[in-house]
Amino acid sequence: MKLSNYFLPVQRNKPQEAQIISHQLMLQTGMINAEVSGIYSWLPLGLRVLKKVESFIRQGMEEIQCHELLMPTVQPAELWHKTGRYNVYGQETLRFLDRHNRELLYGPTNEDMVTEIFKRAIKSYKHLPCRLFQIQWKFRDEIRPRFGVMRGREFLMKDGYSFDLTPQQAEETYWLFLKTYVRIFAQMGLKVIPVKAPTGPIGGDLSHEFHIVADTGESTLYYDPEYDNLDLNQADAVDKLLDLYAAEEEMHDPSSHAEPVNQARGIEVGHIFHFGDKYTKVLDAAVANNDGKQVFPLGSSYGIGVGRLVAATIEANHDESGIKWPVQLAPFHIGLIALGVKDQNVLDQSTALYQKLSNLGLEVLFDDSDESPGSKFNRMDLIGLPYQLILGPKSLKNDEVEIKERVTGDRHTLSTESAILFLTDKLRAVMTTDRYD
Amino acid sequence: MKLSNYFLPVQRNKPQEAQIISHQLMLQTGMINAEVSGIYSWLPLGLRVLKKVESFIRQGMEEIQCHELLMPTVQPAELWHKTGRYNVYGQETLRFLDRHNRELLYGPTNEDMVTEIFKRAIKSYKHLPCRLFQIQWKFRDEIRPRFGVMRGREFLMKDGYSFDLTPQQAEETYWLFLKTYVRIFAQMGLKVIPVKAPTGPIGGDLSHEFHIVADTGESTLYYDPEYDNLDLNQADAVDKLLDLYAAEEEMHDPSSHAEPVNQARGIEVGHIFHFGDKYTKVLDAAVANNDGKQVFPLGSSYGIGVGRLVAATIEANHDESGIKWPVQLAPFHIGLIALGVKDQNVLDQSTALYQKLSNLGLEVLFDDSDESPGSKFNRMDLIGLPYQLILGPKSLKNDEVEIKERVTGDRHTLSTESAILFLTDKLRAVMTTDRYD
Repeated sequence: MKLSNYFLPVQRNKPQEAQIISHQLMLQTGMINAEVSGIYSWLPLGLRVLKKVESFIRQGMEEIQCHELLMPTVQPAELWHKTGRYNVYGQETLRFLDRHNRELLYGPTNEDMVTEIFKRAIKSYKHLPCRLFQIQWKFRDEIRPRFGVMRGREFLMKDGYSFDLTPQQAEETYWLFLKTYVRIFAQMGLKVIPVKAPTGPIGGDLSHEFHIVADTGESTLYYDPEYDNLDLNQADAVDKLLDLYAAEEEMHDPSSHAEPVNQARGIEVGHIFHFGDKYTKVLDAAVANNDGKQVFPLGSSYGIGVGRLVAATIEANHDESGIKWPVQLAPFHIGLIALGVKDQNVLDQSTALYQKLSNLGLEVLFDDSDESPGSKFNRMDLIGLPYQLILGPKSLKNDEVEIKERVTGDRHTLSTESAILFLTDKLRAVMTTDRYD
Repeated sequence: MKLSNYFLPVQRNKPQEAQIISHQLMLQTGMINAEVSGIYSWLPLGLRVLKKVESFIRQGMEEIQCHELLMPTVQPAELWHKTGRYNVYGQETLRFLDRHNRELLYGPTNEDMVTEIFKRAIKSYKHLPCRLFQIQWKFRDEIRPRFGVMRGREFLMKDGYSFDLTPQQAEETYWLFLKTYVRIFAQMGLKVIPVKAPTGPIGGDLSHEFHIVADTGESTLYYDPEYDNLDLNQADAVDKLLDLYAAEEEMHDPSSHAEPVNQARGIEVGHIFHFGDKYTKVLDAAVANNDGKQVFPLGSSYGIGVGRLVAATIEANHDESGIKWPVQLAPFHIGLIALGVKDQNVLDQSTALYQKLSNLGLEVLFDDSDESPGSKFNRMDLIGLPYQLILGPKSLKNDEVEIKERVTGDRHTLSTESAILFLTDKLRAVMTTDRYD
């Protein structure tokens, strides 16, 4: 993407209204735009990250035969009266009347509606297990929205739902989702700890939260030190993880284990609940079992705060100069900085390099502006793309370019060809195609 | 996708509540589910089509440097008071108060908000042209919602916006979008006619609607017979199209041309408007021109009804047995029908074929159920995938499979290898990868 064609309203100064670093950086880099209290637009740079998160989630769900659907944002209040949740959720639910004075609400979650969909579709145990998810906007009318998209009112959430016949199958499904979640987060390059959690208004008796470890986190986590040695991109490591102690403060029981525990701050980005027949029973969503008897399938729900995850990633990955994106979620992989673009040779050579890298399936943000070097360096550090590729009249004279690694600060001076090899080697895992030999 | 694992609640009988064929077929095939008047869930089969439409649109927008963003569904009413549209839109706008009694609304369109975003970001003519789009849910509180997603209340829309410095540039951008729209629709395999249209509450003096030709269309179109000879996948044909007469009934002027005109029924799936400085002026979104003078950029907006387009495609492509998807938008490319799956040989061979085709990047819905042949054939005709691939104990004895083309009804008896070659040849353009030689 050429900066000259792009929509990237980076602000020179730190936005004053932001209390936490992710909110500040998301506003300052032009990832989001505040529209009204707790409600944001996702601008092109931010939306690229959001879409990448979505894509990791979709892939993980596909692997466990969890099918995507899309429920409406607006729901009939009648359904919430049936399940008794209309009053439980209280003023946090945005409620309104349509022109015919029918009660509607903007869905904060979808257990009720998905159970109705399940009920109309599935009549027999033969079609279980049934697993569905969506990535859809939700609304929670927070009394004091704050911290940007971390605690906004309109927010993007992945919500998944499972239905099983027996308690044993339902529990197996629950743990399958839990392990899949751990793997999805690991694939995104994020360190996430699942901890036992209370269930709250969703209900049920088994629940885990998923926390991204970040010094700025609101929660305190206690966990087995062994956790830090696991590579969660390995399936066997994910299995091992289930044996390790981990709990959020509210559920932490110091007497329950003899080992020392680590302590860390965490930001909740996911929450899963097993609630059994709570919704199938009240909505009369029975199926025939293999004896022909009507039974209520057992359900769980599985949430990920998609927008919140983006903010949490920034909380866990930044320094005083700006964001330090993990390559998997970076809006672009490479920031190509051309210095002195009024020099036709610089412009030609940097454009050629931009084309070459793009053709290799790498995502390049090409700063082709005629601003000062300092302003270009600062902006690129702020945006936080994993690799900066810098060239100008001097370096080109020596057939050299410079690579700066954003996370470590390491710099390498290389020939153009070597730089391309360096980048394709480092970024091979995220290249959309692999046409380079 | 194996049917045994999938969520596909096909109804045996025609839904009684549907007045038009697309609504009936979308309900019956389990593409959508009615939640409350004019509000639908998109179930997995329907969502696959919706996502394909989105993907064609994204690709077309990317080609003309139109950048994707995502504005919230909920907007502050204050903004609509400023532009004077709060009252113009009247009761069709879903309005509500939040818990602090602040007036909000569910956005039916976004000219106001995108102009505010533009205003905060762009201060100089140097950053023009500026082109943005989103694919987001909208709400229009129709007094009598009907025809399923064709005239629903919550609906998915692609809305694009452009800002230019001079009237000439703004008009060039308008025509660029118009041509891009024609190409996007052609790439989806749809015949769409752009016609001059009145502007309505969006405002402005130049407007076109895009109609899919279908006998069941609500609109009457008049157009140059030459239109039918153009292959709109060719850029030069798109250019030629601009010289041809085409108008919707309301704008049709029989005296304006001597040639004979064709007449057809059409369904509106897109609408574009050039409205000049209407929104930049009222929201004071000026930029500095190259003399340093503050001027109001000139805007246009560009809509496509994404969900409506799916319904319109069905209106234009069906027969008495069900849907006849164009390959580009089909939820799957191939329906693999295994007859007599209790025969282990049939199950093994059909599963192997399913794997092979999937590995080639083809999307296969594999009916591995043990239902009767008649029930399987009817369901596959109803769903309307372009190619059916049929095998059973008898055909396998002769090392043969049968291919049925859904649109023409043509049947071919082929060896398994020849069938794969036949399908990869026919479907090469839509294969996600191309690993077959």
